[in-house]
Amino acid sequence: MTASQRIFNFSAGPAVLPLPVLEEARRDLVALPGVGMSVLEISHRSKAFEKICFGAEERFMRLAGVADDHQVLFLQGGATLQFSMVPWNLLPAGSTADYFETGVWSEKAIAEARKVGEVHVAASSKATRHDRIPGDGESRYSARPAYVHMTSNNTIFGTQYHRVPTVPAGVPLVNDASSDILCRPLDFSRFALTYAGAQKNLSIAGLTLVVVRKDLLGRAPAGSPVYLDYATHAKERSLYNTPPVFAIYLLDLVLEHLLAQGGLEAAARRNGRKAGMLYAAIDSSAGWYRGHAQPDSRSTMNVTFRLPSEELEKRFVAEATAEGLDGLKGHRSVGGVRASIYNAFPEAGVEALVGFMAEFQRRNG
Amino acid sequence: MTASQRIFNFSAGPAVLPLPVLEEARRDLVALPGVGMSVLEISHRSKAFEKICFGAEERFMRLAGVADDHQVLFLQGGATLQFSMVPWNLLPAGSTADYFETGVWSEKAIAEARKVGEVHVAASSKATRHDRIPGDGESRYSARPAYVHMTSNNTIFGTQYHRVPTVPAGVPLVNDASSDILCRPLDFSRFALTYAGAQKNLSIAGLTLVVVRKDLLGRAPAGSPVYLDYATHAKERSLYNTPPVFAIYLLDLVLEHLLAQGGLEAAARRNGRKAGMLYAAIDSSAGWYRGHAQPDSRSTMNVTFRLPSEELEKRFVAEATAEGLDGLKGHRSVGGVRASIYNAFPEAGVEALVGFMAEFQRRNG
Repeated sequence: MTASQRIFNFSAGPAVLPLPVLEEARRDLVALPGVGMSVLEISHRSKAFEKICFGAEERFMRLAGVADDHQVLFLQGGATLQFSMVPWNLLPAGSTADYFETGVWSEKAIAEARKVGEVHVAASSKATRHDRIPGDGESRYSARPAYVHMTSNNTIFGTQYHRVPTVPAGVPLVNDASSDILCRPLDFSRFALTYAGAQKNLSIAGLTLVVVRKDLLGRAPAGSPVYLDYATHAKERSLYNTPPVFAIYLLDLVLEHLLAQGGLEAAARRNGRKAGMLYAAIDSSAGWYRGHAQPDSRSTMNVTFRLPSEELEKRFVAEATAEGLDGLKGHRSVGGVRASIYNAFPEAGVEALVGFMAEFQRRNG
Repeated sequence: MTASQRIFNFSAGPAVLPLPVLEEARRDLVALPGVGMSVLEISHRSKAFEKICFGAEERFMRLAGVADDHQVLFLQGGATLQFSMVPWNLLPAGSTADYFETGVWSEKAIAEARKVGEVHVAASSKATRHDRIPGDGESRYSARPAYVHMTSNNTIFGTQYHRVPTVPAGVPLVNDASSDILCRPLDFSRFALTYAGAQKNLSIAGLTLVVVRKDLLGRAPAGSPVYLDYATHAKERSLYNTPPVFAIYLLDLVLEHLLAQGGLEAAARRNGRKAGMLYAAIDSSAGWYRGHAQPDSRSTMNVTFRLPSEELEKRFVAEATAEGLDGLKGHRSVGGVRASIYNAFPEAGVEALVGFMAEFQRRNG
């Protein structure tokens, strides 16, 4: 199949990759230039892979502006394993961690932390079906939290932090950035630990990126499973055991592509334009399309909205799919429509959806 | 780069993949036929991926002859995470697990199990630098082991079990088959749990295959990290969280290729021929090449041997690399040369190495 036969993939993740990245990966898939074997086959101990792996680490730090007091790790197990690894490493017995409860994924993170220690919910949007990000004024912290945990973008509900929360002085801030990492410039120095499943903005499924402040390494209790201790991986620069080689290679290509496209400022402008078009379409529909998120909490990555009836929503998704606009069905906890428009999602796809929305309303409004 | 520019990759893993698999993956990399997006981008909740994922599960069961009382799981974290997950799920507090100590990987598995409960070493080859697989007569089991753990192939030392050990009646047998799974027919019904990192005989790095007897699910203690509980993944048929989509797709292609090539009987014949050529070259060198493994414990996957001096070994590896025979340097704990010749390693590569060995001895002997 050729590139021209590609459809628009609005799925929430795994998600669309930049076409030049796919084309480069395809070109070199059977034999990497100068290596004579596929990147799918190279040893993780080879010079060729060390160059890719350490190169991706350094490129990420340069692109994201991560300083040397943080360590980048390439792990496996997704955000799900991080839900456990974070408290395992940072929540000593008898202490409390504070969590912002802003959606399904933060609820899952809370459930895993509760297995390790006490959890205090510092603010929650549950009462209004997670349609907003709680403001700083709503935060009620526990006496001495071991850390504060946030989820910067809530894929299912389509909400996103547009500020770094102010937390008590000296308390480490942990961020699950799975669905919006690298969508904009961000001051990584304000986060003690950031983690992200790679399958939305970074690479393919099977890679988890962790950026952890080095002074937080080595705090896992004695007797921890070796894989669950961040120090294990930091000490060996992500090569303690065989890492997901191909996903790291693709990450490196994605980072290179982002840099060539002007870095994170330019990415933020593109994402603002794409999300802006969709929210404008919602706001100009005279209430026919109803956005789920409150305007000041709207996500630039996942745009969620309802139609006047579930029957119309069903038809919307079916007809959109038939026109090559795929993956628009909303998550069952919100219903309706969700358009996921991560970094690599093309503007042409957003334009096509906006056109389809107008036409669908004309025919059914 | 084209297929003709490929070299011979003797590396211990990640390792060589069948060329037709690489070529099919490349053909469809930008857009999967009938799907319109890359397999690198498809949602793990899509019909297209369910077909791939459940298809790979069923194909594996058919090819390996796994019955319905076992569950196939696609996980992440490699054998390293399994070293912890096995005792976490199967070693209740206060009980003992028996381990066969046959190399570096079994030592690592033992270290992780000791964090969970008692470990009794039922037999060991440590005294003779892991040059052999202990026989059934040497096994000294503990009173009531929770399970017995073996490593069917020892990548670093080049030894392999050529029998299924006889364990006390009713005791679950657990096998780390990372480096020889599907190299030959095997009676999976004799194993309560089998695990294997995919990067040698199955697929690429980043996927771990687990085959577990269903009655052993649900034994992880309350409060276990959700990812570490086999029941989590079994209940959702490996889709509890986002699995390594591309690695599962490649696994499916590898399984299809193995079936088309005559299944595991045929694979065993090919592997026997390949290993046979190398061991014959060692045995006919009048002691110039010295195999590390005792003859009855020789691996068909990793052939390890020494030369008369370390200086010659260095030169052997360097000259072989220059001739396109890559990855032959032995692991530091054995030294010398290691030729890893997994399922997908071509016979032509073994012939080339055998020729090189004879010539190298002629020039330096």
